[in-house]
Amino acid sequence: MAIINDHFLKLQAGYLFPEINRRVNAFIQAHPEAAPRLIRCGIGDVTEPLPQAAIEAMHEAVDDLATHERFHGYGPEQGYFWLREAIAKKAYQVHGIHVEVDEIFVSDGAKCDTGNILDIFGRGNRIAVPDPVYPVYVDTNVMAGNTGEAREDGSYEGLVYLPCTPENNFVPDLPQEHVDLIYLCFPNNPTGAVASRMELLKWVEYARANHAIILYDSAYEAFIQDPDVPRSIFEIPGARDCAIEFRSFSKQGGFTGVRCGYVVIPKELNGHDADGNKVPISRLWSRRTSTKFNGASYIVQRGAAALFTLEGMAQTDVLISHYLGNAALLLNACRQAGMRVWGGENAPYVWAACPDGLDSWGLFDKMLTEANVVITPGSGFGSKGEGFFRISAFNSRENVEEVCRRIHALFAQ
Amino acid sequence: MAIINDHFLKLQAGYLFPEINRRVNAFIQAHPEAAPRLIRCGIGDVTEPLPQAAIEAMHEAVDDLATHERFHGYGPEQGYFWLREAIAKKAYQVHGIHVEVDEIFVSDGAKCDTGNILDIFGRGNRIAVPDPVYPVYVDTNVMAGNTGEAREDGSYEGLVYLPCTPENNFVPDLPQEHVDLIYLCFPNNPTGAVASRMELLKWVEYARANHAIILYDSAYEAFIQDPDVPRSIFEIPGARDCAIEFRSFSKQGGFTGVRCGYVVIPKELNGHDADGNKVPISRLWSRRTSTKFNGASYIVQRGAAALFTLEGMAQTDVLISHYLGNAALLLNACRQAGMRVWGGENAPYVWAACPDGLDSWGLFDKMLTEANVVITPGSGFGSKGEGFFRISAFNSRENVEEVCRRIHALFAQ
Repeated sequence: MAIINDHFLKLQAGYLFPEINRRVNAFIQAHPEAAPRLIRCGIGDVTEPLPQAAIEAMHEAVDDLATHERFHGYGPEQGYFWLREAIAKKAYQVHGIHVEVDEIFVSDGAKCDTGNILDIFGRGNRIAVPDPVYPVYVDTNVMAGNTGEAREDGSYEGLVYLPCTPENNFVPDLPQEHVDLIYLCFPNNPTGAVASRMELLKWVEYARANHAIILYDSAYEAFIQDPDVPRSIFEIPGARDCAIEFRSFSKQGGFTGVRCGYVVIPKELNGHDADGNKVPISRLWSRRTSTKFNGASYIVQRGAAALFTLEGMAQTDVLISHYLGNAALLLNACRQAGMRVWGGENAPYVWAACPDGLDSWGLFDKMLTEANVVITPGSGFGSKGEGFFRISAFNSRENVEEVCRRIHALFAQ
Repeated sequence: MAIINDHFLKLQAGYLFPEINRRVNAFIQAHPEAAPRLIRCGIGDVTEPLPQAAIEAMHEAVDDLATHERFHGYGPEQGYFWLREAIAKKAYQVHGIHVEVDEIFVSDGAKCDTGNILDIFGRGNRIAVPDPVYPVYVDTNVMAGNTGEAREDGSYEGLVYLPCTPENNFVPDLPQEHVDLIYLCFPNNPTGAVASRMELLKWVEYARANHAIILYDSAYEAFIQDPDVPRSIFEIPGARDCAIEFRSFSKQGGFTGVRCGYVVIPKELNGHDADGNKVPISRLWSRRTSTKFNGASYIVQRGAAALFTLEGMAQTDVLISHYLGNAALLLNACRQAGMRVWGGENAPYVWAACPDGLDSWGLFDKMLTEANVVITPGSGFGSKGEGFFRISAFNSRENVEEVCRRIHALFAQ
């Protein structure tokens, strides 16, 4: 009798985005006249065309595959050298950050990587996640059997939740107890918060003292404008002993539909086997990659490499500036409407406290039905997200300006 | 202390293809004059340009991403409807095989799928694999903790090996004991064997009687020419209750570097939870896909869909005929040289018994040093592969003809 992975049965049915879609569809069915007015600022998906450098490189790559001479079959599972080298040089070394070519593992995206990384860790690790949190961190741990059952509020037994609140500026405090794996994400999804060097140093010191590993998600790194905000965990002294970094071209280059990301695992990083012996994490991840992955598409890797050319970098800057300009407008509109707001400065998300005593879904419904704007209820990201909502800056300027007008009309006194 | 997955430590260091590369490199270093003569018929990687229909569709898709109007961000994790529909209609329904659109899950390749599928199964299943076998089936089970330690001969405690030998024409007999998960692959890698309807029916009946699930890898389905050879496990009555099918565009369309495959999970297929309750497998895989995957690249999916157009199908036929023509030449050359041979007729691999009393690596070394041809030693695929070798038909016609001449010169009396 084929036995299923029972841990899947612990997963909560009401996943955030399906519930949002359900409410939106119900509203549109009841009010079809509102459909053309609807503006979606929910899901964090890019809307603008890709940088021209990536477009041209991908056309060339497709043409290569039409020839005998430049045909590319299976590539290295860990990624082509020319892409790994471009990443090492242009995403790290140029900023003075020590990352080597063979510490980079190219993939089809950070969502896959942050999920798959659990393959190389054993059972019995104590795992800490922020609250609110990107749901993938939690759900993949549920699937892997690293949690107990779900509680009433949607949290899971066995995980250590790190509250992110206005009091700590949405940068979690160190846990009071010992943990082994720590998920951190800056610039943060959903709150848009960034961590300072001092705050990250505190976490690195905690991890080193506890032989813990930080799983550092910097998928939104490209949005960092403030030179004092660290772009990588590896800017922090000691991090090479205790951290894995996840990055993505999804937001940097608008690659959400193209699919490319990467993981950085320093050679110094070790886990421990059951006997307490050190085992290099990069050896495990490399083996996992060779066995369960066949490399990202050649076409896609060519597109990603083009983002690091001079033209590619200039075009990426324009793209990032567009979204950050949107974020600034949304931040300002919410503030003008009297809301308490966070994020939106080095991040594409604005995080706001719900006004008028509304809870997250109450605010969602009001925005949907009265302003015809779809936002994301903060409670969907965890119990500490209750009373907040997220607005995504991934949109056209025209739509964002209209959303700002509607927020003003709805809330400004 | 971050604990690693100790099961990784059971994996054998000497993986097949690195060892082949080591020997090839050592030979070339010792005999640099032989380097230009070297012909690689080892790894199963395509060599011919992609069908023009796929090239054109991918150019169009890249152009779409350069516009506002036709931009595509995150797609459905399970694949775009238009690709799933093309697969359902053209790969199944047109052959009279019952597969529905929502039973198809598009991915970035069959290697990922055959590895990742273990996520949804629990521990404690008894698992059967063919011997010789595609190493990914075994290694992913080792990583998942479904085996014991490795034995001297490279096999693992706890797995049930199904011997594939000349006596059973490389189609395994039913196991004497109860198993829960069964890997089958036809046309087979590495032996090129195909299974008849009657043989597959026997397996389906076994699986149904044992509430077992067949993991059916038909990545090489496009090479089937004989109308009596089943193209899909779902041609067999009862298979929808007991089988998952894995397919790939890697060989059909030459997509090894492009990356696209799919899984078919019928709605009727159930596993069992610890309490013996039925749980639909497709629900689990859909949830796994939504949580740990973000869809195959839009560009790649457009390319795959183009393989199902009239032009695409005609061009695919030409590609397949090319490789099958190579296989026929290699099969004939080995036979003429007095070897016992299998496969090569509905498959891109020729499987041959080593002549002259050589073992697999002895034959490998002889072919490398005396004919400057790289083949794959059968023992690399499992203990029952000892005494055999695999020649891949993925090459140019010119190279294959030269390999045939060298085999003749080396072995023909």
